[in-house]
Amino acid sequence: MAQKPSIPKGTRDFSPVEVQRRQYIMNTIKKHFELYGFMPIETPSFENSDTLLGKYGEEGDRLIFKILNNGAYLNKVNEQDLTDKNEQKVSPQISKRALRYDLTVPFARYVVQHQNDIALPFKRYQIQPVWRADRPQHGRFQEFYQCDADVVGSNSLLQEVELVKLYDNVFTDLQLKGCSIKINNRKVLAGIAEMMGAEESLIDFTVALDKLDKIGEEKVKEEMLQKGIAASAIERLEPVFNLSGSFNEKLSVMRDLLSTSKIGLQGIEELAHIGAYIEKSPLKTSQLDLDITLARGLNYYTGAIFEVSAPSGVKMGSIGGGGRYDDLTGMFGLKNVSGVGISFGLDRIYLVLEELNLFPDSVRAGVDVLFVNFGDREASYAMELVFRFRESGIKTELYPDTAKMNKQMKYADKNNIPYVVMIGENEMESGVFTVKNMREGTQNNWTLEECLNHFESAL
Amino acid sequence: MAQKPSIPKGTRDFSPVEVQRRQYIMNTIKKHFELYGFMPIETPSFENSDTLLGKYGEEGDRLIFKILNNGAYLNKVNEQDLTDKNEQKVSPQISKRALRYDLTVPFARYVVQHQNDIALPFKRYQIQPVWRADRPQHGRFQEFYQCDADVVGSNSLLQEVELVKLYDNVFTDLQLKGCSIKINNRKVLAGIAEMMGAEESLIDFTVALDKLDKIGEEKVKEEMLQKGIAASAIERLEPVFNLSGSFNEKLSVMRDLLSTSKIGLQGIEELAHIGAYIEKSPLKTSQLDLDITLARGLNYYTGAIFEVSAPSGVKMGSIGGGGRYDDLTGMFGLKNVSGVGISFGLDRIYLVLEELNLFPDSVRAGVDVLFVNFGDREASYAMELVFRFRESGIKTELYPDTAKMNKQMKYADKNNIPYVVMIGENEMESGVFTVKNMREGTQNNWTLEECLNHFESAL
Repeated sequence: MAQKPSIPKGTRDFSPVEVQRRQYIMNTIKKHFELYGFMPIETPSFENSDTLLGKYGEEGDRLIFKILNNGAYLNKVNEQDLTDKNEQKVSPQISKRALRYDLTVPFARYVVQHQNDIALPFKRYQIQPVWRADRPQHGRFQEFYQCDADVVGSNSLLQEVELVKLYDNVFTDLQLKGCSIKINNRKVLAGIAEMMGAEESLIDFTVALDKLDKIGEEKVKEEMLQKGIAASAIERLEPVFNLSGSFNEKLSVMRDLLSTSKIGLQGIEELAHIGAYIEKSPLKTSQLDLDITLARGLNYYTGAIFEVSAPSGVKMGSIGGGGRYDDLTGMFGLKNVSGVGISFGLDRIYLVLEELNLFPDSVRAGVDVLFVNFGDREASYAMELVFRFRESGIKTELYPDTAKMNKQMKYADKNNIPYVVMIGENEMESGVFTVKNMREGTQNNWTLEECLNHFESAL
Repeated sequence: MAQKPSIPKGTRDFSPVEVQRRQYIMNTIKKHFELYGFMPIETPSFENSDTLLGKYGEEGDRLIFKILNNGAYLNKVNEQDLTDKNEQKVSPQISKRALRYDLTVPFARYVVQHQNDIALPFKRYQIQPVWRADRPQHGRFQEFYQCDADVVGSNSLLQEVELVKLYDNVFTDLQLKGCSIKINNRKVLAGIAEMMGAEESLIDFTVALDKLDKIGEEKVKEEMLQKGIAASAIERLEPVFNLSGSFNEKLSVMRDLLSTSKIGLQGIEELAHIGAYIEKSPLKTSQLDLDITLARGLNYYTGAIFEVSAPSGVKMGSIGGGGRYDDLTGMFGLKNVSGVGISFGLDRIYLVLEELNLFPDSVRAGVDVLFVNFGDREASYAMELVFRFRESGIKTELYPDTAKMNKQMKYADKNNIPYVVMIGENEMESGVFTVKNMREGTQNNWTLEECLNHFESAL
């Protein structure tokens, strides 16, 4: 019966301190989501397969975890499909449910399903795990959390302003200074393509442009040529490659470049509107950067595109992203509902905070105070104090067994417990207890009142 | 492409107010778990199948959700098994992972896997969803949360005392007065069986006795007879059927009854020890009740058995339960590690609090303050105030579009927003804003300072 226990590749156990640190990040995000008026919803871990399949492209469908039907699930499967070992035909016959792949599609489903119960604009946040059958590798997991905030039913650019401020507020609260909130607009990309006469190659063009950071100007140009974009058109891109300066300076160059493209100028005006708001009410620790090469899931976004980079010096992909999509709920039959939203990458933010040593000391697991157990009588006496301490909000425990002093101190040490209280015969008589400060290695003799006063202020 | 959206049977969407109420319960439980020194862990939603299968009996195995392998999963399946449509043989060949069925087995796996990183006694809590392919019905779901606290590696009865106090603290904090924390001990049940000469029918005997509440004395006796327990033995049970009085009075009757059973008396002494502690440090709003008929998963528990009933008058099954199991981690090869733990039934506690109208008014979704949007200039002015309010911790939003007043007020109403601030031309000039109290239907003219003072104290 005994087995060497393990967990599936790409999944993780979280230890107490890891859970506390993750919750610290999630609670900070949640706090600001709520200050901004986003309301929490939760959707089931698995959805009907047809809710999810076909929404994420072929690659996505492949990566969705499917749940085997229960009972005699092979009973009605087509014999030929089984003989052929044709998974594509067999899967829908033996699996009708699938694990959530992201939070956006379930949210769209939620809005349509509950449209009579919600008031538009509807601002929701959702912090839940998602599952993807990706090949596990460093920093990529099969189960991970997404932290999303989206608004549906409002076309106002104020939402984009709010989302930029929200990012800044969260990162400021996490002491993560110097993040770059990159912004672009799909309409600007469309405008550039129009200006180049490459409207039909919009996707190819933006996929190539998106790589500018990684592969450099020459390679980007090569790729565009390969994709059949004319050399003369690529030449006209020169100002984009050389774009520099402040948000407004870049905007000004782009406004000139796109002077003949109606959609391009529209994108520029949207960016200018957002920029002006942020200028008036500046960000605290992040900066707003115009990044004309930013594309992300282009066939998805229709307006603003966001992506957040960790402070320079930290090697890490984007720690957040989002954008506006004009027809979020269309896939479930509710047309013309615009959505805009952002996502925080919990796992990557965790790694960044860890690298920069930004987790506060107060974010720790385990109790504040341990009472040593010297025997039944002492334990019984200490127990009353333990209850009293807890009533004052102090995390407290009594070592449960009358073990050797050494063992009990080791336990305090291993669990990083800052205070140990010792109550033996003498202490019971005098009501003055020996309190050891484990971090500073000091020792005090305190009454109950003194203990409470000290711990309540110190913890 | 459009589909009528729905979710699988037995699963649920949670609306903002439902999420907030659930989080209110979970946060209360979590707070006390931590005050008592329990530390959070999290385990993956799916485990390797062999971690879970065979741990919950045949019925359990049937109810475990299995995840289909990805890729060409039919490739290596035995042809004959497919032709035979033999699910029992096919399943392990096409599914190597399964969704968590409870939190106890993953916890045991965790302890064994990470035994070098944890200090025993290890006190962990875990609040995560579990999945069961049960037939959905009222109050029974395929996805639901468990909230468990367990200690492993300590035989001390102080743990049992702590767990009783923990229940009482949580229910008191939730304003849920009058819960009954029923306690029994497996050793007492073994003692009764011994005294009856029915040791070999221990399971049958306790299964029948467990039904006393529901089917009454006569039917219980009938069932015992049917199971082959001698009439003379059943007669000796009379004192158990007629057990009444206080905790100590009941104990005293049982002590006499079990005077010849060593194991029975051991169970009695354990109960007496726990009872004495609680007498010395009484519960606040719950009561500790000795329930000799309480058995729960008997083949699992080896010492204390707990079950919590909602206050009388509320029709609801148990809202919590737990007990001690002497060999928790044995299934994964780590012998002689005793565990004791309790669980809170989130869904049922939710229903009880709802029925008794015990959710505090402060547990609500949505913002505290809505600014009406009268146009671009006013919105731009209001936006600064919105940011200012949020900095003071007030959940605030500006209606994003310049919609009709009526529409904006309807939005405030539907989202149950308590305050609406109106800033038009005059207000911008004077710096005195019109604030509508939506609940009381009153109206005030306040400066920014007055707004902040009022909201900070009122909210």
